[in-house]
Amino acid sequence: MALVVQKYGGSSVADASCIKRVAQRIVATKKAGNDVVVVVSAMGDTTDELLDLAQQVSPLPPGRELDMLLTAGERISMALLAMAIANLGHEARSFTGSQAGVITDSTHGKARIIDVTPGRIREALDLGQIAIVAGFQGVSQNSKDITTLGRGGSDTTAVALAAALEADVCEIYTDVDGIFTADPRIVPAARKIPKISYEEMMEMAACGAKILHLRCVEYARRFNLPIHVRSSFSTKEGTWVVSDPDSEGTEMEQPIISGVAHDRSEAKITVVGVPDKVGEAATIFKTLADAEINIDMIVQNVSAAATGRTDISFTLPASDGPTALSALKKVQDRIGYESLQFDDQIGKVSLIGAGMRSHPGVTATFFAALADAGVNIEMISTSEIRISVIVGQDEVDAAVSAAHRAFDLDADQVEAVVYGGTGR
Amino acid sequence: MALVVQKYGGSSVADASCIKRVAQRIVATKKAGNDVVVVVSAMGDTTDELLDLAQQVSPLPPGRELDMLLTAGERISMALLAMAIANLGHEARSFTGSQAGVITDSTHGKARIIDVTPGRIREALDLGQIAIVAGFQGVSQNSKDITTLGRGGSDTTAVALAAALEADVCEIYTDVDGIFTADPRIVPAARKIPKISYEEMMEMAACGAKILHLRCVEYARRFNLPIHVRSSFSTKEGTWVVSDPDSEGTEMEQPIISGVAHDRSEAKITVVGVPDKVGEAATIFKTLADAEINIDMIVQNVSAAATGRTDISFTLPASDGPTALSALKKVQDRIGYESLQFDDQIGKVSLIGAGMRSHPGVTATFFAALADAGVNIEMISTSEIRISVIVGQDEVDAAVSAAHRAFDLDADQVEAVVYGGTGR
Repeated sequence: MALVVQKYGGSSVADASCIKRVAQRIVATKKAGNDVVVVVSAMGDTTDELLDLAQQVSPLPPGRELDMLLTAGERISMALLAMAIANLGHEARSFTGSQAGVITDSTHGKARIIDVTPGRIREALDLGQIAIVAGFQGVSQNSKDITTLGRGGSDTTAVALAAALEADVCEIYTDVDGIFTADPRIVPAARKIPKISYEEMMEMAACGAKILHLRCVEYARRFNLPIHVRSSFSTKEGTWVVSDPDSEGTEMEQPIISGVAHDRSEAKITVVGVPDKVGEAATIFKTLADAEINIDMIVQNVSAAATGRTDISFTLPASDGPTALSALKKVQDRIGYESLQFDDQIGKVSLIGAGMRSHPGVTATFFAALADAGVNIEMISTSEIRISVIVGQDEVDAAVSAAHRAFDLDADQVEAVVYGGTGR
Repeated sequence: MALVVQKYGGSSVADASCIKRVAQRIVATKKAGNDVVVVVSAMGDTTDELLDLAQQVSPLPPGRELDMLLTAGERISMALLAMAIANLGHEARSFTGSQAGVITDSTHGKARIIDVTPGRIREALDLGQIAIVAGFQGVSQNSKDITTLGRGGSDTTAVALAAALEADVCEIYTDVDGIFTADPRIVPAARKIPKISYEEMMEMAACGAKILHLRCVEYARRFNLPIHVRSSFSTKEGTWVVSDPDSEGTEMEQPIISGVAHDRSEAKITVVGVPDKVGEAATIFKTLADAEINIDMIVQNVSAAATGRTDISFTLPASDGPTALSALKKVQDRIGYESLQFDDQIGKVSLIGAGMRSHPGVTATFFAALADAGVNIEMISTSEIRISVIVGQDEVDAAVSAAHRAFDLDADQVEAVVYGGTGR
């Protein structure tokens, strides 16, 4: 008998009929002889509706109360799901994050899981019950206040619970068939990836692939927990995220490139005319770090000998742009730079593949493909298993398609897929 | 400095603007130098919407899960209220029933409060914070499951918390100005009652006055906690429910009759042709008790000497009618009665007044008034401070008006009142 943790996102439980369908799938898993723990997000638009209500009463609601409010969403979906399962003749018990033992720090809105003590979940399983757990939420260790985990929170709940329960697999249900070699909305010939390593998946997630959040993959890797990303609308095998995709030899040959990810949510800031002195760059990035801004890529031009000045460009989440600009303005006199440029019409296109390690020439092929497609490269960054470029936002589609084709990722036959958001 | 517990019903927090208005009232109470604890119901129709969702996934949802679902309602309203208060520059913390220490038994859907351990509420008050507590809910002592208190639950939460915190007063906010001598929709000349005793209020509540639930008045009486029922739409004094309304001598003279209550929610069952033997009535009411049906009034006819049979009539909540009839059908052979009659076109009209104890003739005046109004009395029951009669449902209005006038309760001037539901 296996222990299976399943996670269903908001789109999988959007209304009563969706919930009944999910209940049938859960019961089928139970009937197949498994112990089942289910992590569920809030129904469809519930979270947005609650946020809208909050905005109506307060422009800047306190984090503690916002978390209290938002956690009502999972409370509703998990209770309804437990009822739907009971209606199919199986015993189900719903548990809040707190009841399920999801212990976090006190950072409301983006709490981190400190510990998972799923005693009540184990009891429920021992009684033959199906346990339904609220995703996205926990309780703070010190103040016993309700917290939320922020983006990707329900996936993280599922993986953390699965790890604590030593589950055999964590199934992440979504509205697509798995992880694709590229966004099928851009590349209709994109293929489902059968297996991918944690490292590659983390790079994919960090580079804009929205199906799994970076955090949850990191957590799974730490505990070597297999994740199975699959569709709640079909019974097809999805994508397995595991430590070593080659180990079982099911694949004839691992491709050099696993997938092409893209991200339109970043912006670029250029600090123009920075005096080329020791410590100036450090001051700039210390300033940004103090403003809690996460920097992605950084490029520093070669200093112009005539002026003794250089330009420093970096990318960041576009939504952090205003905060970053205002923080940098405050240190202009101290640093002595000339001006700031802000560009949110950029996009990042990334090639990800563990095969890069052993295959030279990937960069050359990638850049040649972009050149052939007439795409201009603005910035470049690389890791051992990834190459990312910044291009104009309106060139993202062309760049993704060109790269996908250049590395022979296009499928012979186009699969019909639905591609949408994944809730939280 | 006084400690004030305020309870706001669903209609007082029906939308964002209502919530903001309530927040201002709470802050005003705090600014006046009081410690404030607020108990809040779910917003407007939230509970009905959640019940509707439950029905969509399961015709008979398990009580534990239904309670989990419904408690999402208060979670939303209390978090929003705390935000609205914070937006006015005051610190507020919301607490679930469980966090507030409302400990109950395990009877889902109508749990009883066993204990209140409001440690976290006291801490919040000590920090100068306003505590917002979810009404209607608690946590079961044994299983640590979330429970709901059933009808009148939020009022009961407020009174129980006020008692545990030794508050100076429990203010119950509603959408009318207080307790009236009769339903102003029936008797426009009805007057607001300035003070009423626990006993009278309990009789009023038991006889259909919907502003306060019997349970909460019982609780307040046990702890001798003053309740102030008032409108959340005005700052007028409402009705004080206290142990001895005469003690302060503010009233010139206590009226004999405090008010006229009515109730259209009951039905009458007549068991026809019961053999007049010892124990037959006991069997009938044992059968009904086993089916968990609460009986209100009972009348047994004088046995007809010729047949040795009698008829037994009783009233019960109309919604329990089908269950009662089916339970009685099953014992027909054993008891040997002839037939059952069911009548849900009845109404109960009750006169309530502590003055009855010392004023003979109340019954005579009451019955004469009904006779003058052409109202036929079907059943009668009395207590020390109450007389109730069952009349035809379409005669209830006439009976209430006639009684109200007969005991000089009509106001000289008609007050403008809005009269509506009170949430839960």
